[in-house]
Amino acid sequence: MLNPADGAFLDHLAGLLQDGVLRPIAPRYLEEPRGRYRGQAAAVACPADADTVAVILRACADARVGVVPYGGGTGLVGGQVAPDGPMPLLLSLERMTALRAVYPSENVLIAEAGVVLADVQAAAEGVERLFPLSLASEGSARIGGLLGANAGGTAVLRYGNARDLCLGLEAVFPDGSIWHGAKRLRKDNTGYDLRHLLIGSEGTLGVITAASLRLYPRPARNGAALMVVNTPADALALLAVAQAQVAEGLSGFELISGMGLRFLREKLPDLRQPFSTPPDWMVLVDLGLPTALDPASALEAIFEAGLDAGLVSDGVIAQSDSQRADFWNLRETIPEANRLTGAIVSHDIALPLSVVPEFLEQADAAIARLGPFRVNCFGHLGDGNLHYNIFPPAGHERATYDSRRAEIQGRVHDLTHAMGGSVSAEHGIGRFKAADLVRYGDPAKLAAMRGIKAALDPVGIMNPGAVLGQSAG
Amino acid sequence: MLNPADGAFLDHLAGLLQDGVLRPIAPRYLEEPRGRYRGQAAAVACPADADTVAVILRACADARVGVVPYGGGTGLVGGQVAPDGPMPLLLSLERMTALRAVYPSENVLIAEAGVVLADVQAAAEGVERLFPLSLASEGSARIGGLLGANAGGTAVLRYGNARDLCLGLEAVFPDGSIWHGAKRLRKDNTGYDLRHLLIGSEGTLGVITAASLRLYPRPARNGAALMVVNTPADALALLAVAQAQVAEGLSGFELISGMGLRFLREKLPDLRQPFSTPPDWMVLVDLGLPTALDPASALEAIFEAGLDAGLVSDGVIAQSDSQRADFWNLRETIPEANRLTGAIVSHDIALPLSVVPEFLEQADAAIARLGPFRVNCFGHLGDGNLHYNIFPPAGHERATYDSRRAEIQGRVHDLTHAMGGSVSAEHGIGRFKAADLVRYGDPAKLAAMRGIKAALDPVGIMNPGAVLGQSAG
Repeated sequence: MLNPADGAFLDHLAGLLQDGVLRPIAPRYLEEPRGRYRGQAAAVACPADADTVAVILRACADARVGVVPYGGGTGLVGGQVAPDGPMPLLLSLERMTALRAVYPSENVLIAEAGVVLADVQAAAEGVERLFPLSLASEGSARIGGLLGANAGGTAVLRYGNARDLCLGLEAVFPDGSIWHGAKRLRKDNTGYDLRHLLIGSEGTLGVITAASLRLYPRPARNGAALMVVNTPADALALLAVAQAQVAEGLSGFELISGMGLRFLREKLPDLRQPFSTPPDWMVLVDLGLPTALDPASALEAIFEAGLDAGLVSDGVIAQSDSQRADFWNLRETIPEANRLTGAIVSHDIALPLSVVPEFLEQADAAIARLGPFRVNCFGHLGDGNLHYNIFPPAGHERATYDSRRAEIQGRVHDLTHAMGGSVSAEHGIGRFKAADLVRYGDPAKLAAMRGIKAALDPVGIMNPGAVLGQSAG
Repeated sequence: MLNPADGAFLDHLAGLLQDGVLRPIAPRYLEEPRGRYRGQAAAVACPADADTVAVILRACADARVGVVPYGGGTGLVGGQVAPDGPMPLLLSLERMTALRAVYPSENVLIAEAGVVLADVQAAAEGVERLFPLSLASEGSARIGGLLGANAGGTAVLRYGNARDLCLGLEAVFPDGSIWHGAKRLRKDNTGYDLRHLLIGSEGTLGVITAASLRLYPRPARNGAALMVVNTPADALALLAVAQAQVAEGLSGFELISGMGLRFLREKLPDLRQPFSTPPDWMVLVDLGLPTALDPASALEAIFEAGLDAGLVSDGVIAQSDSQRADFWNLRETIPEANRLTGAIVSHDIALPLSVVPEFLEQADAAIARLGPFRVNCFGHLGDGNLHYNIFPPAGHERATYDSRRAEIQGRVHDLTHAMGGSVSAEHGIGRFKAADLVRYGDPAKLAAMRGIKAALDPVGIMNPGAVLGQSAG
């Protein structure tokens, strides 16, 4: 059992640390971003280096006090907000914001865990490189949290998930030992890949303090188009057409539904939409090409091939960078329109690509049987990653349907699991999905995870309650 | 301590298995590919499915008998050949050769662990896709071993290491539990990434029985050129030129030294070489481009830009697929010329890209101080991965210098480590480099590895002596 971080412990810890590291907890650290609950923490520790992180973890392990690592606070599954259990210490990486080094010729950048994603993107751009990780919260999400959760986003199709953009880590284990592994190597087969074990472990195995990140050349020419398709199946067929046309030049392939466009029109009427009548489905096709290729021509070729195959019925190709930005803004404002509309429940699921159309048919039918709910399905179709979100009937409040949340989510997750999918594509398990992990997880995998957790964190201080639930430790 | 696989154990195990699974050991299983030593094993088990693998592992764990997993037998660090310790059982995946399914529209293929790499490549080609993993032993190396060792090869620059080409695994843990994780998902954040933990663990944590593999569209048009450069630094500058020109279209960037070309001329005089006088350094530049781009024009542009910048002095662009194959054949025959010449010691190292030139200067000087040795340095320059191999003076036998091997290797590895490099880039640790792992490994990482090993394989049956040496178990 863990002990609460009581006054005596905080006094002891303060004595081990420089002034200003241990701070009173501020309310913002305890907010769950979707407002589902309030968290608790005795204080927040804000170390400025890995050595101090080590001191803190060692003290917590000695005293059996839980530690909740905190990045930008943007996680959507409650991983950074502990609602109950013995009072923990919050450990915020907000002061570790150094860009330690940039190696443009190697396409490598070394960032501390507290650097905000947008700052990494800007630093890369400053040396004419691209750090491709891109998602709605990039203005506040921090590198440590993004890696801890293995964030996804809109560029995974081309560049992979957060884990694929990391060459090495510096991290502190629960015993206070520091792993100096932020190397700049493309190949390194010296033992078990702890990097990938820590990435996606959501702060339950240690604290990431710095990362060696992969940069890419910036595509010389970018382009984007919105194309109207009849069905998700046609959208997938168009994906294959686009890949055949430009291969890795396809940077993004996002699905947008008519429901999402209607929400936007209703809640954000000033946002210009390209089609006067919202189509049932459309895709945002984004290209990044070398100098010798013209994005507009490539998009026209994709559109023409889609027309010939009966896949697309209408479309608009961005005529400028600013119009391309407008298309992306439309896509990225959908979550805000969702928020203003008020979802009963959101789902972050992944499916084998070819299964997506059948999933949508079955899921829509299953939801319809539960009541006259509205579904806004959008997401990263190129990755098989859907945000399948359920809203109350028009004119009704979400609060009316809170009691239905578990039932609706159960139907969607059961179906996802039955069709070979994942109930957490890019958001992680956190605390919201710890029960799902037990319900849908492979028993051999779960047993191995528990063994690893017990081996690396025998007292169970790291992010107690997250991922593996309350059993560990 | 482990027990030997004695007659009583083999009788007991045979009783648990179908006829034909347990077989007498054949000499070929005990050969270390470079002839460094002979292995030992009491028998070889050849299961045809994961359930049988589970029965075998459970029996071995109960009896405390070691298990050496065996794929194609091509590993170069002794991981598949146990020379000493209590007599183990060999577990060969050679009967698990099913291609369970191919999903061309998803760019996914599911292969059992015993499928030979060339057969996966061919299956992908059969559906107009590419499985990019490519290396000299592709005609005999098997998928399970390639993933167990996280193989590299010539396409890493564009497509990543073996681990980057794997979406999911089916594997058997040492307790006989089966993890059914060969999923077809691009995003799956449900718990710790056991896939990446098993990949590269060289059979010390469990047995991979099947894998879900990533396919890619085949580049529509390929091209290759050999370009003469003055120095490795110029080669690196040319790499940047090529990436600026074609971005991800650059599929390979291989460094070849004049020493390698002279070895080829001496040992394999029938092999045609493109330059009458072997240049000190040249690079093989390989492109795979979409339909709209012409490889020959792109290679000319790279060559012209290289000329203008004073980086290249001569070059030849392949005029046909067959000439491109000749260029690759030249590159891929270097290891055979090395074998015929007889290396005192080979190194498989990786360095931060920008450090490569300084490393070569310092390493060459350090070797020269040890004696009039010949160095053939070649490899995957785009990945910072060098095969830095040391040969006796002309006219001398390698055997004369066997006693110098440890000293030479120590100099090269010390320097590699001091410059932030890895002493195993793509071959793994196996048994040859277990001492190097302790010598150069990060202590916190090593402790975490030992903890994970003890958690997943408490008896220490899996590939005893490999990676972590004899201490585990």
